[in-house]
Amino acid sequence: MTSQSDVRAAVEAGGRDFSAAIARGDAAAVAAVYTSAAQVFPPNQDIVTGRAAIQQFYQGLIRAGVKGVPLTTREVEAQGDTAYEVGTYRVTGDGNKVLDSGKYVVVWKREDGKWKMHRDIWNSNLPPPKPQ
Amino acid sequence: MTSQSDVRAAVEAGGRDFSAAIARGDAAAVAAVYTSAAQVFPPNQDIVTGRAAIQQFYQGLIRAGVKGVPLTTREVEAQGDTAYEVGTYRVTGDGNKVLDSGKYVVVWKREDGKWKMHRDIWNSNLPPPKPQ
Repeated sequence: MTSQSDVRAAVEAGGRDFSAAIARGDAAAVAAVYTSAAQVFPPNQDIVTGRAAIQQFYQGLIRAGVKGVPLTTREVEAQGDTAYEVGTYRVTGDGNKVLDSGKYVVVWKREDGKWKMHRDIWNSNLPPPKPQ
Repeated sequence: MTSQSDVRAAVEAGGRDFSAAIARGDAAAVAAVYTSAAQVFPPNQDIVTGRAAIQQFYQGLIRAGVKGVPLTTREVEAQGDTAYEVGTYRVTGDGNKVLDSGKYVVVWKREDGKWKMHRDIWNSNLPPPKPQ
């Protein structure tokens, strides 16, 4: 039996792995934090399915100048090998400039004994860019 | 024991209740589809916590001209009294005009024997409005 606090610790550690991989520009290591059948739901585009596509998505963010995505876990609740997390994020660029901040919900799954992100969706707290 | 397909049917029925309540402009009935401690995570604003605030949020959408939010369930997976759903939505206005379309993840909880939305987050598939 794994306790709720064990799962929370594993989820927070997974989030730190994610953020560290972004910070060193390693999209493959970012994708490795996801399950093999993971889906990512980025704002303003279609669903991204599977690790290869997820790696490509994060490669694009890194290429576009994203230098950091620090995460703050607010809630984790586990049932068996599935857990959901609620948290807040920031996206930073050069000189630690905050490019975006918002909230996310991630469904985590234990795959091969390790907790990984399985469904990952977020959106911004910032006002939308003003239309022309 | 409730089967996965029973939970999926309950989740889809809950989604239909949600959409029907929006369509008749009844924000209280929309809020009643959520658990008492629910959180809603709308794009471009802060987290909305609790049924009273959720009712106010949907009242605002209805007042702003939202006439329908049809949902399409793509995936439901239950563990005990918790389930997650992945789906797609449209937001329609007058004359069935599509104002937005995108995807969502909802964590459902069985509360007082009924499946209700507990954590609800979505984002648009449409490109962001162009900045000036």
